[in-house]
Amino acid sequence: MIQIIGLKKMPLVKEGDNIGDLIVKAAKQDGVQLENDDVIVVAQKIVSKAEGNVVNLASVVPSPLAERIAKMSDKDPRHVEAILKETKSIVRMREAHLIVETHHGLVCANAGVDRSNIDGEESVVLLPVDPDRSAREIRARIRKLTGVDLGVIVSDTFGRAWRIGQVNVAIGVDGLKAIADYRGSKDMFGHVLNVTQMAVADELASAAELVMRKSDGIPVAIVRGFDYPKGSGSARDLIRPREEDLFR
Amino acid sequence: MIQIIGLKKMPLVKEGDNIGDLIVKAAKQDGVQLENDDVIVVAQKIVSKAEGNVVNLASVVPSPLAERIAKMSDKDPRHVEAILKETKSIVRMREAHLIVETHHGLVCANAGVDRSNIDGEESVVLLPVDPDRSAREIRARIRKLTGVDLGVIVSDTFGRAWRIGQVNVAIGVDGLKAIADYRGSKDMFGHVLNVTQMAVADELASAAELVMRKSDGIPVAIVRGFDYPKGSGSARDLIRPREEDLFR
Repeated sequence: MIQIIGLKKMPLVKEGDNIGDLIVKAAKQDGVQLENDDVIVVAQKIVSKAEGNVVNLASVVPSPLAERIAKMSDKDPRHVEAILKETKSIVRMREAHLIVETHHGLVCANAGVDRSNIDGEESVVLLPVDPDRSAREIRARIRKLTGVDLGVIVSDTFGRAWRIGQVNVAIGVDGLKAIADYRGSKDMFGHVLNVTQMAVADELASAAELVMRKSDGIPVAIVRGFDYPKGSGSARDLIRPREEDLFR
Repeated sequence: MIQIIGLKKMPLVKEGDNIGDLIVKAAKQDGVQLENDDVIVVAQKIVSKAEGNVVNLASVVPSPLAERIAKMSDKDPRHVEAILKETKSIVRMREAHLIVETHHGLVCANAGVDRSNIDGEESVVLLPVDPDRSAREIRARIRKLTGVDLGVIVSDTFGRAWRIGQVNVAIGVDGLKAIADYRGSKDMFGHVLNVTQMAVADELASAAELVMRKSDGIPVAIVRGFDYPKGSGSARDLIRPREEDLFR
């Protein structure tokens, strides 16, 4: 059996906070004992806030391109400028939709740049600069404080091609492999499996979202009891190289 | 807290079996009491087998097109013929990859047609003809046998654009809404939520896969404790209409 436990006592996160510290403290207040082989899923937004990866829109001067896109897409031109700064290439652009490849190689709407309101200022929250590193730091901190060895996923909420609605996916991974690779494995009848590579880090992120979704007050969830593929993983393993991708 | 419980005692499924009956029996043998508001996720493969939606390859005569595609893709031409029969339109075709829109409107590799070996015969298992109906029948049967009112998802394992690895998604839904719609909702600070439509049925299917994946012996999982959006849902609600889709 797998359990998914939302941490209810996470405080509001501000720049300079240590997410590992906050998780350990919130787990204690919630009466949850962290265990070896847990997977902790952390919403990208609090990671970016802690890392100060937030831009006050008052400080943004939109480029002429951002102005033109904003006019087509009904967005604030300063928001568009922040998106373009995080963009390596534009994958699709139509009306309100701007699907891009980010500097990390992630393909998502608006480069993952969300509007926010922090202390009364109109701001945007960017994705973490290096979400794998963010996951690594959280994991190391929890291990230092508790001695517990677990996996950490930094998650964000992405749309998909062909399907309506968003799902949580893994954008940063540490302490587990992002992909469970069954290539060459056989099923119980001795036949080679049809399904060969499962994106377990994305499935863990989606599972965690089921307890996170209700409120911004639950940005951290623990998935317990999943026998995940051990090893050194990276969310980069989930990114299909452009030359192998039939959809950009 | 959410729990994900795999049913370990499901027998091998054969044509004519009633999946609802088998689930109730397996839950009893596993010592799992089905509860109101559980979500039962059932792997497509056993649904198709029970419904007899299996084609013996010996009976398939490949068309010239199937022969040509087979040559390019290193597949059995009879397998390609079975795929084309399930196909409404081809979305992408390159080397071994055949991404199509099925009659259901699903976009996936090989029209969801998997090779299999049933009683020593080389066969292919098709997707259920109407996966929503399959879910509805399973749900109604469980309710009749136990009085329990729960949600049912028929799941399959799909690849994605841009990302490596497959994830479980919902192809049939009954007893819950496939999408949790937060359009217009506000967060704890009173700001309109950035994320507006969550594909919860897909996230439930992905969560279930975490206990299903290890072996073909666990084709059914129960997700318990998720406060899902009540109402009459359909997996069709997860399909982005072609005219709104930027990726086909």
